[in-house]
Amino acid sequence: MAEHLSQSELDYPFKLLEYFNGFRISKVIFSACELGVFDLLLESPEPLSARHVARELSTSVDGMERLLDALVGMEILEVETTDGTAVYSSTDVANLYLAKGSGKSLHDMIIYQSQTIYPLWNNLVDAVREGKNQNEKTFGLPPEDVFQAVYRSEEEMLKFMGLMNSSWILDGHDIATAFNLSCFQTIVDLGGCTGALAREMAKAYPSSSVTVFDLLPVVETAQKHFSQENDAVVFQSGDFFSGEVPPADLYVLARIIHDWPEEKCLMLLKKLYDACKPGGGVLLVEAMLFENRRGPVTAQIFSLNMLVQMEGRERPPSGYTSILNKIGFRNVQVCRTGKSYDAILAVR
Amino acid sequence: MAEHLSQSELDYPFKLLEYFNGFRISKVIFSACELGVFDLLLESPEPLSARHVARELSTSVDGMERLLDALVGMEILEVETTDGTAVYSSTDVANLYLAKGSGKSLHDMIIYQSQTIYPLWNNLVDAVREGKNQNEKTFGLPPEDVFQAVYRSEEEMLKFMGLMNSSWILDGHDIATAFNLSCFQTIVDLGGCTGALAREMAKAYPSSSVTVFDLLPVVETAQKHFSQENDAVVFQSGDFFSGEVPPADLYVLARIIHDWPEEKCLMLLKKLYDACKPGGGVLLVEAMLFENRRGPVTAQIFSLNMLVQMEGRERPPSGYTSILNKIGFRNVQVCRTGKSYDAILAVR
Repeated sequence: MAEHLSQSELDYPFKLLEYFNGFRISKVIFSACELGVFDLLLESPEPLSARHVARELSTSVDGMERLLDALVGMEILEVETTDGTAVYSSTDVANLYLAKGSGKSLHDMIIYQSQTIYPLWNNLVDAVREGKNQNEKTFGLPPEDVFQAVYRSEEEMLKFMGLMNSSWILDGHDIATAFNLSCFQTIVDLGGCTGALAREMAKAYPSSSVTVFDLLPVVETAQKHFSQENDAVVFQSGDFFSGEVPPADLYVLARIIHDWPEEKCLMLLKKLYDACKPGGGVLLVEAMLFENRRGPVTAQIFSLNMLVQMEGRERPPSGYTSILNKIGFRNVQVCRTGKSYDAILAVR
Repeated sequence: MAEHLSQSELDYPFKLLEYFNGFRISKVIFSACELGVFDLLLESPEPLSARHVARELSTSVDGMERLLDALVGMEILEVETTDGTAVYSSTDVANLYLAKGSGKSLHDMIIYQSQTIYPLWNNLVDAVREGKNQNEKTFGLPPEDVFQAVYRSEEEMLKFMGLMNSSWILDGHDIATAFNLSCFQTIVDLGGCTGALAREMAKAYPSSSVTVFDLLPVVETAQKHFSQENDAVVFQSGDFFSGEVPPADLYVLARIIHDWPEEKCLMLLKKLYDACKPGGGVLLVEAMLFENRRGPVTAQIFSLNMLVQMEGRERPPSGYTSILNKIGFRNVQVCRTGKSYDAILAVR
């Protein structure tokens, strides 16, 4: 999004055509990921022909060759010709982020975007028209209970948790260190999902105790699929809307506020304020809009994503300051990380 | 696609995340186009608030505001604040290419991409697996007759013809002048659709006669919806696969060869060879791959599009030289325009 749509775009709209092609570029990567192309190439000791890849992954040779060539054009794979046959190999970037095995893998984020978000966005026109999410039109799910939609099956829950996990593996360290949080002895990550962000907190603040608090089925799935030996974080189950929250010096709400209508956010923040001792606080983690709302494009797009899938929105800094002040929190500090997600800290 | 996926991408995958966002960027523009945002802003004498745009286009205010803000972030719209209210106006690029009225409008291309191509690409994994188009899975249409799918209703025919029309309004002049074709007295554009490319030919070669040859329903729709006063081109109906082709010095096949399996292309080119006098020729118009198939990304993506929707493919120059030589055509010349489509000329 860096280039300005300049005067030369009037002569020939190269940038617009690139925007129009965006959905196909996304699907080229997503499909290669779903088919296991990056995993196969990572494990292979030598470059592979399209025929070989197709055989291993049970696809057509012709289709696989076109897919591999497009990935070469996008500089995600490399190709060389040996004895007249094109053979493909992976790049460091693909091995690190697109293959399944790596600790930094975005595989689960991609699966969720391809299979859940892509179809939802096919109904963006209706989302804008109606001002509400498109879970019903896209998946036949009731629009009023968004997490019933997100968690509609064990498979979908696992996919969503994978998405969250990938995303904190990417941004978690920057979030945990956006502020010096070492003064908070007990940290509770509400809706902490797989614990990926909480683990970054535990790593950054080894003398603090860090707890992940989430719905019982989420906690069970986290422990079944995302558990770690000698885990530095503790899991506790409960519902932060309908029930009590565990006592803590700092409550973390990462991508929670953006899911819900304002009155529900205010209710939740009030509950946390009441649970805090003076000096305790909340850390909100969201993709923050510029104050004038003219960017960043990523946050604007995420805000539309909240429209299509949830009941909330992304906000500029003043949006958070305003709801936090309304509740009584003070000293609201904002830190833009320069990555996808930003941090807002406030104390009682 | 210009930036190299460099080492710094290993630290944080900004470019990959931009690729993942591609489908949402596309849908932001597509949806604004479908809702009529660019037409309304073009016609308005003054910048409009989100509330005003929402009222005029019967959408939610909240959804429209998020959509408009994202378009500002993408530099497709502009915003300023008057009396504390954000008001939006269009840019020259949006007025020229995204609004309906302009002679260079890509509106019809966008509608087709949003409503037909986007859902088809949701099944790219299956297209690669099976090596065939996904008309059946996406739209419940028989995969074997691709133009029955494309032309399945008057509405769909009109949308597809709009797509073709937009695209030749963009690239037609470069294609018509890629070679000096003034030596060809009669030019027949086979599958010439709305006549947009043929008109560029007639403009570039005013002493040649230019005929559009297409299926009867296409010719009827062209004359009903895309006719021009004092049209410089003549329309003639017929089926170039099952019937005769009109006599001509030059046959144009623009985005025809890429639709079909090779044997069908060879059959068609043989028919044209037989219909040509010595010195007569064919002009093929396609998005050409590099000889080593490592790009351009646009052509690679189009080749995958042919997989998902049709029965053909894009080719490098040697692919065209080879099939043209097989038939007996000689002097194959290739011209890359630097735009989306390129030209290949060969004579009998």
